[in-house]
Amino acid sequence: MQTLLRELEAIVGSAHVLTQGDLSAWTQDWRKRTHGKALAVVRPGNTDEVARVVKTCASYRAQHPESAVSIVPQGGNTGLVVGSTPDDSGQQLVLSLHRMNAVRVVDGANLTMTVEAGCILQTVQERAQAAGFWYPLSLAAEGTCTIGGTLGTNAGGTQVLRFGNAREQCLGLEVVTPQGDVWQGLSGLRKDNTGYDLKNLYIGAEGTLGIITAATLKLYPLPKAQLTAWAAVPSLEAAVTLLGLAQQHLSASLTGFELMGQFALSLVAKHFASLRVPLYAHNAFCVLLENADSESETHARQQLEGLLEVALEQGCVTDAVVAESLAQAQALWQIRESIPLAQVQEGLNIKHDISVPVSAMVAFVKDTDAQLAQAIPGVRLVNFGHLGDGNLHYNVQAPEGHDAAAFLRKQEPQVNTIVFDSVMAHGGSISAEHGIGSLKVGHLAHYKSPVALQTMRAIKQALDPLNLMNPGRVLADSSHAFGETEPVDKGL
Amino acid sequence: MQTLLRELEAIVGSAHVLTQGDLSAWTQDWRKRTHGKALAVVRPGNTDEVARVVKTCASYRAQHPESAVSIVPQGGNTGLVVGSTPDDSGQQLVLSLHRMNAVRVVDGANLTMTVEAGCILQTVQERAQAAGFWYPLSLAAEGTCTIGGTLGTNAGGTQVLRFGNAREQCLGLEVVTPQGDVWQGLSGLRKDNTGYDLKNLYIGAEGTLGIITAATLKLYPLPKAQLTAWAAVPSLEAAVTLLGLAQQHLSASLTGFELMGQFALSLVAKHFASLRVPLYAHNAFCVLLENADSESETHARQQLEGLLEVALEQGCVTDAVVAESLAQAQALWQIRESIPLAQVQEGLNIKHDISVPVSAMVAFVKDTDAQLAQAIPGVRLVNFGHLGDGNLHYNVQAPEGHDAAAFLRKQEPQVNTIVFDSVMAHGGSISAEHGIGSLKVGHLAHYKSPVALQTMRAIKQALDPLNLMNPGRVLADSSHAFGETEPVDKGL
Repeated sequence: MQTLLRELEAIVGSAHVLTQGDLSAWTQDWRKRTHGKALAVVRPGNTDEVARVVKTCASYRAQHPESAVSIVPQGGNTGLVVGSTPDDSGQQLVLSLHRMNAVRVVDGANLTMTVEAGCILQTVQERAQAAGFWYPLSLAAEGTCTIGGTLGTNAGGTQVLRFGNAREQCLGLEVVTPQGDVWQGLSGLRKDNTGYDLKNLYIGAEGTLGIITAATLKLYPLPKAQLTAWAAVPSLEAAVTLLGLAQQHLSASLTGFELMGQFALSLVAKHFASLRVPLYAHNAFCVLLENADSESETHARQQLEGLLEVALEQGCVTDAVVAESLAQAQALWQIRESIPLAQVQEGLNIKHDISVPVSAMVAFVKDTDAQLAQAIPGVRLVNFGHLGDGNLHYNVQAPEGHDAAAFLRKQEPQVNTIVFDSVMAHGGSISAEHGIGSLKVGHLAHYKSPVALQTMRAIKQALDPLNLMNPGRVLADSSHAFGETEPVDKGL
Repeated sequence: MQTLLRELEAIVGSAHVLTQGDLSAWTQDWRKRTHGKALAVVRPGNTDEVARVVKTCASYRAQHPESAVSIVPQGGNTGLVVGSTPDDSGQQLVLSLHRMNAVRVVDGANLTMTVEAGCILQTVQERAQAAGFWYPLSLAAEGTCTIGGTLGTNAGGTQVLRFGNAREQCLGLEVVTPQGDVWQGLSGLRKDNTGYDLKNLYIGAEGTLGIITAATLKLYPLPKAQLTAWAAVPSLEAAVTLLGLAQQHLSASLTGFELMGQFALSLVAKHFASLRVPLYAHNAFCVLLENADSESETHARQQLEGLLEVALEQGCVTDAVVAESLAQAQALWQIRESIPLAQVQEGLNIKHDISVPVSAMVAFVKDTDAQLAQAIPGVRLVNFGHLGDGNLHYNVQAPEGHDAAAFLRKQEPQVNTIVFDSVMAHGGSISAEHGIGSLKVGHLAHYKSPVALQTMRAIKQALDPLNLMNPGRVLADSSHAFGETEPVDKGL
């Protein structure tokens, strides 16, 4: 093993092979649920070094068939499903892409930008904006997460409604394969029908099929105005109706449609009194709408107010405000973003990141609420999320006054079974945007169709026969154990 | 072999296993370049029958290791790269999806529609429209081609600029695997991060990894107005500048941006005098723009005229007209669609379907024009296509007065080499929207990166170890020969 580490030092420099000291920034996951043990943290500075690191590990494995050395690619380590930290074995290398953070090129005429995997999402947004363009992927961890991580996990966020997930915002990739070859697929092309879609295979594979080292991203012209409205709706049905109206009236200018349940908002009002939550007291749900207009602020306001007028007339909105300033808009978004933090204040809870077709949303929530209420009298449901994408963070809070940690320990399996069974019954997904990692591997094995699992295994086996790349993630693998510590909620 | 045919008859009914009579509708490709020989044409009526046909063939192959029986999935058979007709061996079954043409469901609230693979594209457009929605995929063969075919080949067309290729307009698939299993992936979800992206692997694989039997497609609200403008631009540089302006001013409302070179338009004027081509006589290029507005026709006109005003001021447009009626708009689009037909009248030519980044377009055309002019004095270039997607149909016509058929036979290899080498030098693709089929298999083997080819082969081998599904397409396979007849140009 020391030979391997020496070889890696020769490739990336000894300063970039970390084995001593506090490595928890790399070995502990974002929500602090688990703490693994790394053989080393390796920090290559360029694609060639990544390739040589992988080749060296592959060749070590070939020479030492008994060895279980493997590679865990890591970006900002902000994932929520324990997909980028090492297991307990001490045999896994964390391969951090952090040093590879160059913006290689901004191509305005082609509306593309090519960046290295270690670029922070917020840096990419800022560099795009400085050049007069918009890279719209946006999510809570954007100040820390990397582009490579957003692509490895196919991240979602608040702008999916208009622009799609990270997948749809990427045109090409550079990938180091499990053999240590470099696939140069950094295409800036909107059309390229020359064979199988390797790009989309690597995106969302969570580092199990190769290491994304760079990407060519789509840019958009900056909008002239972005307006935010807050609408109170009497029911979930009304929220779905409002969504349809908004899609008709605003078309592609509708860039955000976030649902917030009354109990979720009451937690924000309770724990962050200074935020002044509007209109929630007498309404079952509120909705945040965002309108990005390519024309003018006047036009944006006219369009948004026109929509709300129709919605008020039709009764699917009972009251609404349109932010008058950027500060007001930010304050409204802050309420939305504070829901998970308010939940932390209220106590530990069981989180889900699910999706169902929008047309099944009302029935899903009704059925699942009822089943949970029956199973756990007094259970409280924190319901919020990206309704425009059919994606809810359907979180389950202990009954008032109960010990939340005990509730979590005791009820989580039962609650998950109820929620996931209901998701499947309504044609949904048990992981809409967070991915599988190691945390949901068992659930995936249970809920995914056997044909899909078999096809996925065949692909994994074909592309990574040594099981070198992030083993035990996405696809179950009994030889990798991920210890779970006491649950700690950072509000994510 | 007779046993196999009897078993297939037992599955789909003897009326749907065709071996006698004129089978050329299934065995000859759309451009009539090749004519294969089918073991039989099999026409299953539902997904279960498709699965049983595949299982039966797989099991026949297992029992007869010497047999080369394989399956060629076929939709409308309108492909341009000989991907859906059988080879010369008489060992291939054409599996026609034509009878599977049900619209399973239109889900307005979810903006999705689930249809079987054999649905004609135009039928899907019409059924969507009848329900108040828009399925925007649109291409010349839409009256004949099927949804399964558009997905198998990841078809493009005129609306890619806003809505993406067939791939981006599809949320889920039902697929029969090479083992005869059914993958039920008909998701209506916008977010689903539960494992590898099988959907995008099957899309664009041209039937080599499985048979698409149904799909869930994205719908959009119908626009309130669709306006068409025709703008004369002094140069290709100016056309690229106009594209950037249009993207800024119209944002997602810009749904079409088609470039037409002066020589291409002169051929339309020469051979279809009744069409009255505007503004081409004194301008190097013309551009067709389409603006789909969610607000009103007045607003659409205002926006489009505003754009053209700015463009005239900046000098990237020298003159322009906005269609005053649907009839006028259709007449303008007819000119665009008549370019390939005018080329037929002028004589056989060498066709390319290439893409490069928009920012490389000017240099690509300049370099390639110059190289061709040097290699073949007097050569004439018919240049038109989807500039908004970086996709050109860069066609090469014989010098005036030359024998076009002789030109094609003699010059095609040299011309292809010049064009494809130049495409690669400018970071482009040798097949933007038509795919590979058998026609471009040799070119792909030459131009695609070895790492990509190796990865593609590993996937093919893993998912279809018998090489049962459309062998010899996409990936070269020396055991499959596709005879080429005298070239006949149907203007496609």
